[in-house]
Amino acid sequence: MSLQIARRVFDIEVPDAVLAQRVQFKFDNKTKPVKSLGEVEALAVQIATIQNTLTPVLRNPRLYVFAADHGVCDEGVSAFPQEVTQQMVANFLAGGAAANVLARQHSINMYVVDAGVKAELEPATGLIDQKLSPGTQNFARGLAMPLAHVIAAIDAGAHVVDGAREALCNVVLLGEMGIGNTTSAAALTHLITGVELSRCVGAGTGLDHKGLIRKAAVIERALAVNRELLNIADLDPYTMLSVFGGYEIAMMVGAYLQAAQHRMVIVVDGFIATAALAVACLLNSRVLHYCIFSHGSAEQGHGLLLNHLGRTPLLNLAMRLGEGSGSAIAYPLLVSALSLLNEMASFGEAGVSERSIR
Amino acid sequence: MSLQIARRVFDIEVPDAVLAQRVQFKFDNKTKPVKSLGEVEALAVQIATIQNTLTPVLRNPRLYVFAADHGVCDEGVSAFPQEVTQQMVANFLAGGAAANVLARQHSINMYVVDAGVKAELEPATGLIDQKLSPGTQNFARGLAMPLAHVIAAIDAGAHVVDGAREALCNVVLLGEMGIGNTTSAAALTHLITGVELSRCVGAGTGLDHKGLIRKAAVIERALAVNRELLNIADLDPYTMLSVFGGYEIAMMVGAYLQAAQHRMVIVVDGFIATAALAVACLLNSRVLHYCIFSHGSAEQGHGLLLNHLGRTPLLNLAMRLGEGSGSAIAYPLLVSALSLLNEMASFGEAGVSERSIR
Repeated sequence: MSLQIARRVFDIEVPDAVLAQRVQFKFDNKTKPVKSLGEVEALAVQIATIQNTLTPVLRNPRLYVFAADHGVCDEGVSAFPQEVTQQMVANFLAGGAAANVLARQHSINMYVVDAGVKAELEPATGLIDQKLSPGTQNFARGLAMPLAHVIAAIDAGAHVVDGAREALCNVVLLGEMGIGNTTSAAALTHLITGVELSRCVGAGTGLDHKGLIRKAAVIERALAVNRELLNIADLDPYTMLSVFGGYEIAMMVGAYLQAAQHRMVIVVDGFIATAALAVACLLNSRVLHYCIFSHGSAEQGHGLLLNHLGRTPLLNLAMRLGEGSGSAIAYPLLVSALSLLNEMASFGEAGVSERSIR
Repeated sequence: MSLQIARRVFDIEVPDAVLAQRVQFKFDNKTKPVKSLGEVEALAVQIATIQNTLTPVLRNPRLYVFAADHGVCDEGVSAFPQEVTQQMVANFLAGGAAANVLARQHSINMYVVDAGVKAELEPATGLIDQKLSPGTQNFARGLAMPLAHVIAAIDAGAHVVDGAREALCNVVLLGEMGIGNTTSAAALTHLITGVELSRCVGAGTGLDHKGLIRKAAVIERALAVNRELLNIADLDPYTMLSVFGGYEIAMMVGAYLQAAQHRMVIVVDGFIATAALAVACLLNSRVLHYCIFSHGSAEQGHGLLLNHLGRTPLLNLAMRLGEGSGSAIAYPLLVSALSLLNEMASFGEAGVSERSIR
């Protein structure tokens, strides 16, 4: 028996570009000036091509909040104590967090995935146990997690999305919770975009200037400690995750790719969620066809990732909370886009004259 | 008996700034990093101060689409024929327009105000008759409407909003429909902002470059014809409306001001709606405290007006449809803001630790 563990290969289809033209043609016959719904039309066209239909519908939306702890918290990289991760998991399960409020408003079913919380969590409705370890190791001193855990976490994320598909869900919102995880995300952003580290590091939950400098120094140390593994010229996403973690990020990588393989609509949240997506893109960039970018975070690294991926988000409200809150608050825009495509009258149906002069 | 007609005076209160601090304090105790909901928190604070409460609620939202025709269409300023105004009114009443779809999605009751459509409209559910005239005169040849009509239209708009208040509605969305009305709005934008006319004129429903030049030339002619009335140094909003109309714009001016007097939340739509608001501000700038700017239109004059008013919209989706469609698509963000303020658990309630280090 080999020690080599099988790495999952994701088979992602490219949506049909000809269908996109047909959807736009359908929109152009609606009672409005051509393209006057702007980005909302592009949104409907994207979802229609994901679903390969002229009449797309969103069914049983689910928000998965992947939660995990980070050993690097030992270095004082967060304004909040590490136990806030497990306290927030309890808050999610009790319905009191921002993501809960937004999910309720939009009839999105919300689940918490224990991807690696540093506590024994009692079984609860809405809690999915995928824990591989009670949090990462402190990556300032070595690997965040062994390679075998990276592979298993990607599998676990894929497995979570399989559950959504079995429930006939065709749109997933992926959020995260993990004190310390902007430190992981900043390191990944630096590796993937090549932008200098200081520009990738942000205040997270609320560091001051001194805290920011400490956070960047911790990542610098981790880069030095693991420099033989990290070959910037040939980025290996498995190694990146092994070095910088965390468990929630690695599971989200698997969740994104599996959702795309299932041709589901994926709503991408903020900085950490997009860092995970950027890693997923290194494994299979076709995942991007299935992604809708919900909002631009106030956390500065997010803009770098969006620029790297060449995408513009729907909202820019200076949010920086995570939990899938940006995805959830943007969700009704997706519903609007499809409702407009499916429900608006055409010029012929409404007896409205088409343009006469230019 | 004097020929002088009474001009309505609007008595608008300034919301309590101390309450704004108390609302922010309430938000700062919720289970999230301080200010991490960004603009969404500012939105909730604004609505709370409008309603003068720590627990604001939106009740019975109404969208009024003010519809009217424009004599200046004789000059070929629109890509669509003038009869599209009345055809779109029929489409609104039948539920087939973009605004209908969005209003249905968000449980917003929608009404069409006949502010001056060039057709006899049969009474219908959801249609409010406030017609003063079957459209404006061609302002390239003189006044769009007599001064008495401006005063009566402002009264009519206020009367419409009184109806909303009687129905216990506390949030209004004001939209418009009127082939040719971006020409009115461009002229008003030029007068109010002082920006050169060519930068205020946009493609409207879809003019090409030649059409744009024609549209600007028509406004230049109107400015020349009415130059003795238009004293830029001392802008009189009544005169501006008398010269450039239209009836829907004048009624919206009254609707904005009356809604603010009633301390209602006002959701501001795109270019024409904001031009009307800019006129309303000349009568009483306190109206701005009650306004939420829903979206930035792709129509270039809108950015000039937003800049003039010093406001940033919630959405930037390159929409340019009017009808209140931008207001309606942004509406769930208002609901989100209040739900977050009212429903999120505090640190104490959820047993979540507050920040430990900086």
